[in-house]
Amino acid sequence: MKTLQDYLDKLNILNFKEMYNGNFFLTWEKTDDEIEAVFTLADALRYMRENNISTKVFESGLGISLFRDNSTRTRFSFASACNLLGLKVQDLDEGKSQIAHGETVRETANMISFMADVIGIRDDMYIGKGNAYMHEVVDSVTQGHKDGILEQKPTLVNLQCDIDHPTQVMADMLHIIHEFGGVENLKGKKLAMTWAYSPSYGKPLSVPQGVIGLMTRFGMDVVLAHPEGYEVFPEVEAVAAENAKKSGGSYTKTNSMAEAFKDADIVYPKSWAPFAAMGQRTELYAQGDQAGIDALEKELLAQNAQHKDWACTEELMSTTKDGKALYLHCLPADITGVSCETGEVDASVFDRYRTLLYKEASYKPYIIAAMIFLAKFADPAVILKKLEENGKPRVFK
Amino acid sequence: MKTLQDYLDKLNILNFKEMYNGNFFLTWEKTDDEIEAVFTLADALRYMRENNISTKVFESGLGISLFRDNSTRTRFSFASACNLLGLKVQDLDEGKSQIAHGETVRETANMISFMADVIGIRDDMYIGKGNAYMHEVVDSVTQGHKDGILEQKPTLVNLQCDIDHPTQVMADMLHIIHEFGGVENLKGKKLAMTWAYSPSYGKPLSVPQGVIGLMTRFGMDVVLAHPEGYEVFPEVEAVAAENAKKSGGSYTKTNSMAEAFKDADIVYPKSWAPFAAMGQRTELYAQGDQAGIDALEKELLAQNAQHKDWACTEELMSTTKDGKALYLHCLPADITGVSCETGEVDASVFDRYRTLLYKEASYKPYIIAAMIFLAKFADPAVILKKLEENGKPRVFK
Amino acid sequence: MKTLQDYLDKLNILNFKEMYNGNFFLTWEKTDDEIEAVFTLADALRYMRENNISTKVFESGLGISLFRDNSTRTRFSFASACNLLGLKVQDLDEGKSQIAHGETVRETANMISFMADVIGIRDDMYIGKGNAYMHEVVDSVTQGHKDGILEQKPTLVNLQCDIDHPTQVMADMLHIIHEFGGVENLKGKKLAMTWAYSPSYGKPLSVPQGVIGLMTRFGMDVVLAHPEGYEVFPEVEAVAAENAKKSGGSYTKTNSMAEAFKDADIVYPKSWAPFAAMGQRTELYAQGDQAGIDALEKELLAQNAQHKDWACTEELMSTTKDGKALYLHCLPADITGVSCETGEVDASVFDRYRTLLYKEASYKPYIIAAMIFLAKFADPAVILKKLEENGKPRVFK
Repeated sequence: MKTLQDYLDKLNILNFKEMYNGNFFLTWEKTDDEIEAVFTLADALRYMRENNISTKVFESGLGISLFRDNSTRTRFSFASACNLLGLKVQDLDEGKSQIAHGETVRETANMISFMADVIGIRDDMYIGKGNAYMHEVVDSVTQGHKDGILEQKPTLVNLQCDIDHPTQVMADMLHIIHEFGGVENLKGKKLAMTWAYSPSYGKPLSVPQGVIGLMTRFGMDVVLAHPEGYEVFPEVEAVAAENAKKSGGSYTKTNSMAEAFKDADIVYPKSWAPFAAMGQRTELYAQGDQAGIDALEKELLAQNAQHKDWACTEELMSTTKDGKALYLHCLPADITGVSCETGEVDASVFDRYRTLLYKEASYKPYIIAAMIFLAKFADPAVILKKLEENGKPRVFK
Repeated sequence: MKTLQDYLDKLNILNFKEMYNGNFFLTWEKTDDEIEAVFTLADALRYMRENNISTKVFESGLGISLFRDNSTRTRFSFASACNLLGLKVQDLDEGKSQIAHGETVRETANMISFMADVIGIRDDMYIGKGNAYMHEVVDSVTQGHKDGILEQKPTLVNLQCDIDHPTQVMADMLHIIHEFGGVENLKGKKLAMTWAYSPSYGKPLSVPQGVIGLMTRFGMDVVLAHPEGYEVFPEVEAVAAENAKKSGGSYTKTNSMAEAFKDADIVYPKSWAPFAAMGQRTELYAQGDQAGIDALEKELLAQNAQHKDWACTEELMSTTKDGKALYLHCLPADITGVSCETGEVDASVFDRYRTLLYKEASYKPYIIAAMIFLAKFADPAVILKKLEENGKPRVFK
Repeated sequence: MKTLQDYLDKLNILNFKEMYNGNFFLTWEKTDDEIEAVFTLADALRYMRENNISTKVFESGLGISLFRDNSTRTRFSFASACNLLGLKVQDLDEGKSQIAHGETVRETANMISFMADVIGIRDDMYIGKGNAYMHEVVDSVTQGHKDGILEQKPTLVNLQCDIDHPTQVMADMLHIIHEFGGVENLKGKKLAMTWAYSPSYGKPLSVPQGVIGLMTRFGMDVVLAHPEGYEVFPEVEAVAAENAKKSGGSYTKTNSMAEAFKDADIVYPKSWAPFAAMGQRTELYAQGDQAGIDALEKELLAQNAQHKDWACTEELMSTTKDGKALYLHCLPADITGVSCETGEVDASVFDRYRTLLYKEASYKPYIIAAMIFLAKFADPAVILKKLEENGKPRVFK
């Protein structure tokens, strides 16, 4: 695409009116048109920024960020997205706040939202909790808006929960689309989402789940590979299977990394924790059972260590399509001999794909901004057109 | 009121010219006109935001926040107010700074204020310290401005000190005014500011003091109720008595919660620490006497525990005017059976008033913004009128 | 100077075109014209702010701050500079991030820079590390921009490294220029950069090094004084000697504070750690040798304590030119009898110069803003002229 109008034309044939005043929890709760609207708007916003056209649509307003886990790139992506649109990020640092002292989610959600246009939450630590918490927040502010407490209903952007990591996997997907020259070229391509060994443990399941939940929608042959015992949520697998059927692709599983890599066009080797163990850990935390947590940690590390052969090696890469599969990772990766002794990927593989990996990450701020935009404006194409006509530059000239 | 002009007309008959370039320490240092100007401007700013008119009056400039106690809602209220006007909040996190290492208040105040239009301080922990500290900061930057160090004199907004909590109680009061349909309907209404039991201890006195120092100015019958030994600052009581006399209302005291609630139109049951004990604690901290602090804590918790019957129960609520007094709280409340075993208020009472409580809180950002506005603009009505005429929307359209 | 045009005329005769798209590491890497351009632009930006002309040249964009040491004034200066130009500061708090877990500098630098126009780094703790780290960051984002990962190349501003503290010493220098009525009046003036006793140890060398590296460029007689054993980087001394030769001034050394102060026009007495010891400390940290670090600390404090007579006393001040040398300090100072028992300066001396010291500090935000501006705009004079013509006020009127 060459002009903003191309993006707007595309937006105009999509139906995404349900996104207005909505939220973004899970990709599979969105229609194909809605997913495509996010991609299109993300590209349009990037086009405008590259062409020095301001996309600042808010003169004031807050974007609340609530991170229950440390984060560099998601934090910066959210801050970038908010800033691009004119919103000021206000962190809800639970350490600095009084939330612990007897406040309900409903109360906190309202107290922080008087001038909030967006709430971004990352809560991926505990199975069955993160997504549920996000819904509780949304229900609270929706009610608060109805009751006249809040002048606007903030939109929620899921910045990673126990089930999905929509901003990550949509950035990954947009990267794929661009690398393959369009979504129309993905039919029949093979994508391998595979487990890989890492010396740390307890990594969230949201990425592999998000990948199989989203990437199965584009007619690709998606393979999920992991050692026995590293199963993901069955509910998400059901979604993946259903998606594949509808899209004319396939969703299969294997316990062999080699099988998954064989002739793959795209590979996504990444460590995660077994679903069952994560559920166990959630309960142990709830009970405050530190001894149990320590025992589980030991057990999980031992279990991981049995699968050190699950690594994205040069040898494995050479078995992919023309030896040149697109290598994906959400970063940071555990790189063998660099960040750890034995890890997810060979250093030489990682190095060869470094620029592409950074490009992959660069879509995330635009994906987040697009999600916000679609929740805030009934007709984004009209707004973007007006912004272009106004011609206010991002950087003064 | 229906149009912005109605608010401007009201502003135009009030005399608040002394507020220009001033600060906001204590409500009773302000004239009735000045207090009314804050309420009117707060309502006007809210009206404009609701009608998507930008009130961004600063293209650049900082709002410095200095919190010496954790805080969610005041922190967010200050951030919201600054953002509404175009100021960027910069936290002075004393942990991250070098303040401890030999800097005077005068030096720090100047160093952080080169581009500061506002300084918001919360310092409520130590009796005789918080308000004094705020004055020291203001004296420092006033001198700095005179000396040509600072291009502008930042205005101070007291976000809670040891004496008063003006942004809280003015938000409470504006809520009362709206609930009762105007300040003219408050004459003769009974307001009960009463102590209530909480399992924690050492809660600041600034709310009860702020309430009796402000609410006595509107012709209401204000009753302060607490168990013996929970006295507040005598100086503030003197202010309350004086206010009541002038306004044609009354200020009385009782050691009976039942008496205070009887036929009350408004109730504000909330825990606080005894004034004398807080003074003692301040000294113990100054001496670094941890054993003394621990002993005092034990003593205070035991003292509190003798008054578990001081709770806002359904039974007590039923004795208020038509059983329907307006229930107020600065939040978070200690709710019996929810956030603690025995607390300040029955869960069913709290639940019934939840929406109203959140509305009460929603005025605070506007109160803070109004305080800033009145310190920064000689003629706010003219500025608001121009903003309306410019018609720049808060959210692009 | 009286009008903006005077500043623009001056800019127009300077050659600073190499600064466009560049970075600011060390003052001696810049030409005289470039240094003068920073001063001129800093004054111009201050003039505009004082005259309520908005200098907001970014509608969106981030200024990343990365502080590896606590800081109040540099943090606020950077935040102020960014805010003045319209950039939003995003702190990279390494504690809150995942940087430690296997990320390379190259990766982190790109991940935080998708929408970053500026990166400000303070990294002064370890000899041979800080400046090198900054170069690594710049190399990474330059490559990232070339590779199409970053839409813009963020400019680096050195907010203090192991070698230089350019924003500090350029603020100091601009203060000198203003106090002496212009750079043309500095020829032959004597400036004494001298060590002074402090009860703390391990203070960075970047200020004395920055001072001799910059102040020798203006024809002054610069004397570096310190006790034996407190030598600074020999490379920077070589720079100072070279500068002095070119500028027609002189650079000399002495181990006598009295000799340095004698007839000095400007004095800058300040503690720092011996270069050799700092190198040793860096190695001990690298080896994780806590016992060695503790031993070194003891040794250094003992060494310091032998030189308690190195203090800026009234007696010494009386030996300066007319007893009225301009006293400089980067603040906070160790003031005898105030912040410590025996320190760098007598309380009465410090008090007499307090207003001037705060003014000295007040230039820093403008110096930083000027550095950013020169890296971002090919023709700053044209931009400032347009801003003046547009006439958008900083504070609405």
